[in-house]
Amino acid sequence: MIVELVSTGTELLLGQIVNTNAPFLAARLNELGFSVLYQTTVGDNRERMRNVLTAALERADIVITSGGLGPTQGDITKEVTASLLERKMYLHQASAERIEKYFAERHLCMPDNNLRQAMMPEGAKIVDNTCGTAPGVIVEEESTGKIIINLPGPPHELSAMFKISIVPYLIERFGIQGSIVSRVLRTYGIGESSLEERIKKYILAQSNPTLALLARNGEIHVRITARAENEAEALKLIDALENKIRPELDEYIFGTNEETLEMVVGNLLLNKSLSIALAESCTSGLVTSLITDVAGSSGYLTGSIVCYSNSVKIEQVGVPENIIAVKGAVSRETAEFMAQGIREKFQTGIGLSVTGIAGPGGATADKPVGLVYIAIDGPAGLTCFEHHFNGTRTNIKHRTALAALNHLRQYLLSI
Amino acid sequence: MIVELVSTGTELLLGQIVNTNAPFLAARLNELGFSVLYQTTVGDNRERMRNVLTAALERADIVITSGGLGPTQGDITKEVTASLLERKMYLHQASAERIEKYFAERHLCMPDNNLRQAMMPEGAKIVDNTCGTAPGVIVEEESTGKIIINLPGPPHELSAMFKISIVPYLIERFGIQGSIVSRVLRTYGIGESSLEERIKKYILAQSNPTLALLARNGEIHVRITARAENEAEALKLIDALENKIRPELDEYIFGTNEETLEMVVGNLLLNKSLSIALAESCTSGLVTSLITDVAGSSGYLTGSIVCYSNSVKIEQVGVPENIIAVKGAVSRETAEFMAQGIREKFQTGIGLSVTGIAGPGGATADKPVGLVYIAIDGPAGLTCFEHHFNGTRTNIKHRTALAALNHLRQYLLSI
Repeated sequence: MIVELVSTGTELLLGQIVNTNAPFLAARLNELGFSVLYQTTVGDNRERMRNVLTAALERADIVITSGGLGPTQGDITKEVTASLLERKMYLHQASAERIEKYFAERHLCMPDNNLRQAMMPEGAKIVDNTCGTAPGVIVEEESTGKIIINLPGPPHELSAMFKISIVPYLIERFGIQGSIVSRVLRTYGIGESSLEERIKKYILAQSNPTLALLARNGEIHVRITARAENEAEALKLIDALENKIRPELDEYIFGTNEETLEMVVGNLLLNKSLSIALAESCTSGLVTSLITDVAGSSGYLTGSIVCYSNSVKIEQVGVPENIIAVKGAVSRETAEFMAQGIREKFQTGIGLSVTGIAGPGGATADKPVGLVYIAIDGPAGLTCFEHHFNGTRTNIKHRTALAALNHLRQYLLSI
Repeated sequence: MIVELVSTGTELLLGQIVNTNAPFLAARLNELGFSVLYQTTVGDNRERMRNVLTAALERADIVITSGGLGPTQGDITKEVTASLLERKMYLHQASAERIEKYFAERHLCMPDNNLRQAMMPEGAKIVDNTCGTAPGVIVEEESTGKIIINLPGPPHELSAMFKISIVPYLIERFGIQGSIVSRVLRTYGIGESSLEERIKKYILAQSNPTLALLARNGEIHVRITARAENEAEALKLIDALENKIRPELDEYIFGTNEETLEMVVGNLLLNKSLSIALAESCTSGLVTSLITDVAGSSGYLTGSIVCYSNSVKIEQVGVPENIIAVKGAVSRETAEFMAQGIREKFQTGIGLSVTGIAGPGGATADKPVGLVYIAIDGPAGLTCFEHHFNGTRTNIKHRTALAALNHLRQYLLSI
């Protein structure tokens, strides 16, 4: 089956946002065995959108649109789909009630034009939106058997709707043969090309399972996708290839599939019954916030102090004044005192500290922007790491946070 | 002049990479006054690429391709362009020498197939590649005056070639197309449809400038885009429309263009010479981290305490034990004591606190997931706000952080 993706939205044509929906849908559809041969982007213009959808229906079996399901006059994707397939629009009562409920639950009064989101093409399947107000739509053209699927534009709404509702629909409708399973090995601390070098022979030899490398903000993901009679067989194929790849990458692989560094760290803290407190300077709460992105993190995170000023480092975290005077606020010694100080103050099993220069200001002759110290104090003793990161202020904060979590992971594994 | 962007490459169709070339080109072309009405992505397949280029030439004056100029058999964009415009391919000597030189300088021996990159359509303009081996190509169709431009796929090569060679070509070839200028009014605290209702008459009446609403993680952006002879004229048109819109939205507009809430708050703190400290529970450092995404935030942020556990709320921030026992850690009273406590402890002009239930656990009969209290203590006294947010744990954290920054902004404006 051939699929065409049609992304709608003037902001895409103006280059104001990057289209992440198309690669998301393309990757998932390919795993399901569908061929995505064309992707088209068009603005919120009825005539041009109709032309694009007409061309797409000629060369594809399934057309999946994203965007243009909102409540505003500019949101026309459903109307254009309906008129192209000669369906009238009607008010879908259940959707109207869901939208009204959505606003009521938030103690908001619903503007009338939100009901536009409940107007549906006759004979369409209505798809729930678990993350927003705009339902999705599936319209099947009886005569040709061709299908148009309208999905919402916001990436988190689109991805949830696709996984929860569209994948089961496609599998049921087209009776996908056998089973396609993917497993992602998440690595940290190795570059994409070095990683590729290490497993090149498997990448070149790939057929089933297939191997794909994906750079994902600071991590490199290795996605293994296998096709087989059933899930068990596919998993066997994945296990076999993973067993060959792992030895090459073992030190860098921290988790699989949806596992994040903060989840892995959280599980290690729970398993070892260790609590943690942080003293953050240049990351100023980012590491702590990542740790609490994990449900249940109150089971191990006691708290943190963001010691942005020297006075807070000295008075609240117990860094000796002369250390800051002599060695500087960004120094191995300060980082170590911060880790010990916060651990003692909050009486936790682990104390983690971060101090560095996020830039653009603050650099000195011997201390450039991107210089970062990360210290950990705990049952295995006190240890400190020096890093030199580059990029913007927020890049450096983010890279520092990931490095801190990874050092913590390795420290906990060593206990 | 109408431009169509054609991105080529199977890796795009497979969803293995995100297409950043299209938004880059679209944004630059719009600034130059060209209209990008369609963007198409197609794989490295001669027939399908030819069909896409044929359709593009029918509906656009200029077609700009990206990708497929490399040395491999899969790189066919130039050949397809040449055959479509009925040009023979020939070896372009200067390009061949440049490519040989490129390898020689790097002490690499050049694989013969790299000479494929020097094969050019007859009568084409050859465009130097300052960052790689693949030259770009401009082919003008005499009969129709239509143009196909082939650019390389690697984003740094494409952007350099576009700025250095293509922009001057377009300006010389078409003269200045006038200029298109956009200004974004960033709003917080109003929904997309309520906002649209307030300025509906301007949206319906729009021609030049145009008006577009964009939802951007928790904010609604109003984009005003004007087209005129020159930038100054365009800005006049924008100012005129902005002056009509602002009164309708004034309470919600916090900044323009790239201004973020944390920048606006930072400037207000600087202007009023107020320092700030935060006590964060459910956001656990996220608000502080956002504040320090702004360069120079050390000028007003003293520090914060992430008081995730009750013991830290009590011992470090000074929330009375009985308040937590009677009212609960998530209560107006606890939030108020946190704001006062952190302000006093860190001796700052402003104390801001956040406590809430990010979920999925932690809810009680009378305190649902998403219940959040935000308190501010400062020169204008102590104030507290109650919110009910929905979504995932990270959604709720993010929405809470934006709300906290906006309350802080309004508090500072009131001083």
